[in-house]
Amino acid sequence: MAQKVGNQTFVLDRKVYWKEGVCIVGPKEKEGPLGKYFDQKENEDFGEDTWEKAEARFVEATYAKLLAKSQINENMVDCIFAGDLLNQCIATGNGLKKNGRPYFGLYGACSTMAESLILASLLIDGGGVNNAVCLTSSNFASAEKQFRFPMELGNQRAPDAQWTVTGAGACLLSSNNPEESCPVIVSVTPGKMVDYEVKDVNNMGAAMAPAAAFTIQAHLSDLNLSPDYYDMIVTGDLGITGKKLCMEVLKKNGLDIDMKDCGEMIFDPEKQGTCAGGSGCACSAVVLNGYILRKLREAAINKVLFVATGALMSPVSTKQGESIIGIAHAVSIQNM
Amino acid sequence: MAQKVGNQTFVLDRKVYWKEGVCIVGPKEKEGPLGKYFDQKENEDFGEDTWEKAEARFVEATYAKLLAKSQINENMVDCIFAGDLLNQCIATGNGLKKNGRPYFGLYGACSTMAESLILASLLIDGGGVNNAVCLTSSNFASAEKQFRFPMELGNQRAPDAQWTVTGAGACLLSSNNPEESCPVIVSVTPGKMVDYEVKDVNNMGAAMAPAAAFTIQAHLSDLNLSPDYYDMIVTGDLGITGKKLCMEVLKKNGLDIDMKDCGEMIFDPEKQGTCAGGSGCACSAVVLNGYILRKLREAAINKVLFVATGALMSPVSTKQGESIIGIAHAVSIQNM
Repeated sequence: MAQKVGNQTFVLDRKVYWKEGVCIVGPKEKEGPLGKYFDQKENEDFGEDTWEKAEARFVEATYAKLLAKSQINENMVDCIFAGDLLNQCIATGNGLKKNGRPYFGLYGACSTMAESLILASLLIDGGGVNNAVCLTSSNFASAEKQFRFPMELGNQRAPDAQWTVTGAGACLLSSNNPEESCPVIVSVTPGKMVDYEVKDVNNMGAAMAPAAAFTIQAHLSDLNLSPDYYDMIVTGDLGITGKKLCMEVLKKNGLDIDMKDCGEMIFDPEKQGTCAGGSGCACSAVVLNGYILRKLREAAINKVLFVATGALMSPVSTKQGESIIGIAHAVSIQNM
Repeated sequence: MAQKVGNQTFVLDRKVYWKEGVCIVGPKEKEGPLGKYFDQKENEDFGEDTWEKAEARFVEATYAKLLAKSQINENMVDCIFAGDLLNQCIATGNGLKKNGRPYFGLYGACSTMAESLILASLLIDGGGVNNAVCLTSSNFASAEKQFRFPMELGNQRAPDAQWTVTGAGACLLSSNNPEESCPVIVSVTPGKMVDYEVKDVNNMGAAMAPAAAFTIQAHLSDLNLSPDYYDMIVTGDLGITGKKLCMEVLKKNGLDIDMKDCGEMIFDPEKQGTCAGGSGCACSAVVLNGYILRKLREAAINKVLFVATGALMSPVSTKQGESIIGIAHAVSIQNM
């Protein structure tokens, strides 16, 4: 039985194995510094005539590849946790509609990968669920169209704007002891909404930074851990601007942490013109299931705190003067 | 520990108590046949200048009323499961941003109340979580604007169109034995996506009916129950048209069930001009936490299968020729 420790952390009792991870990305992501860790590259339109359909194809292909790579029969999947950034999560819906397994739709903006890991882990720990799939996606062009301007307008980007990652990442969590050793989800810290009244939609990193800082702090404090306990504390997609702000907030609260950020790592801002770095549900999903999973398997790192961050807003809420709400969920993944 | 039974049903081990339910509705809902079961009435605009802000106020007020009615300190809430129909679930975000408790954002369209009950129940059953809040909302005017036409156009409604319920419903699920007896969540059957290629957005009931039928069938078959086991099998918001279709599908598969439907019950179509009945995330949420909870407490009924239904689509996916995906999640609630 999971134990609640402190204010918002749950320590798992059963071993929840991170059995397999898969990621399919677009060309820009494949050309980036982490390119070699990604399983497959597809064009941003994936051969479809709309960006939304393209994103659904990324979802569909990633799910199929996960089943194939895991060598698991689809009927063994007890449930799927998934979501994306589009209105009413249609990329996920259309990408997964053929799969025939129980489906929990999530909306956590770019924090969705961590949200799905938390729920899947707790359900596996609680019994009944043996195999759960977590999957999230985003697409640069569908996100620009949805949240900013259609690509065709050729708008100039703000220097602290982030570049939505094209791709989808998925993993299989399981209660079944694997043949080879694999990383394990040890504890989870679901996040609270944080509103610092940031209203600049070109600076999502600033809106999410306090939420990330508070969740990291809560996790360490609930478990009475020092930051050195982890080989890597990695946020989802704060980007270059947001990561700096997050580290500042943590420092003010007495925590001097040499953090990583998936949004900062995935692109080379100078060579690739990606301003403050990557973002989107797929950003942390592909870095986690590509790069971080590989590093854990190679035992280059053994203890990771993965903190995916989300900005809860819509273009309508922004136009109506609402601020951007930040949220961050943390998952502790370790080699045992 | 929860046990998986059959293909997709989970039987809970601990008692998960449905401790309290609250619903706040709009004037039309209060005037409807179930009006007396709803806790509070507010105007559709809730004194705000936009429909989206109004919906967020319904969320905020319903959450506050739930805490007050439950006499629970907010810090005792381990987590909140919530969602709505608006793009990026902003009603939920803005309505709950001040609350300061761990938050799991869901998107299950009108099935969200059942989705949240399933996840909350499984997390409570699994240990760690003692008190969880489930909350969903919708607003007639914000939904018309989002999914169909702005109110100001005065468009004519199709006869099988449904009327989005204005309101929010919430409940507190808990592992703590209450002083007075209260209904208990016994088992849950999360649903699969079902695509019957229905493309008529004025007939959501038809799109969701097969999903509801399959989930009901799966639940009964997994647990080897006959439909008479339940005093009431109630779907979320199939409406008059969808309920008929669902019963037809069930009959073809050998199940002759005298179902209820929240969308059919909440309005009087002739007096209120609501065509095929109510819909929206709030529809099943307010009927469940108002009418059904009261009937269970009065022991007028003792065993209910609550099957909330959702249509996974967006106006964009419809314009791009995608069909409407249906989903239905079932929760068995009983007096013990």
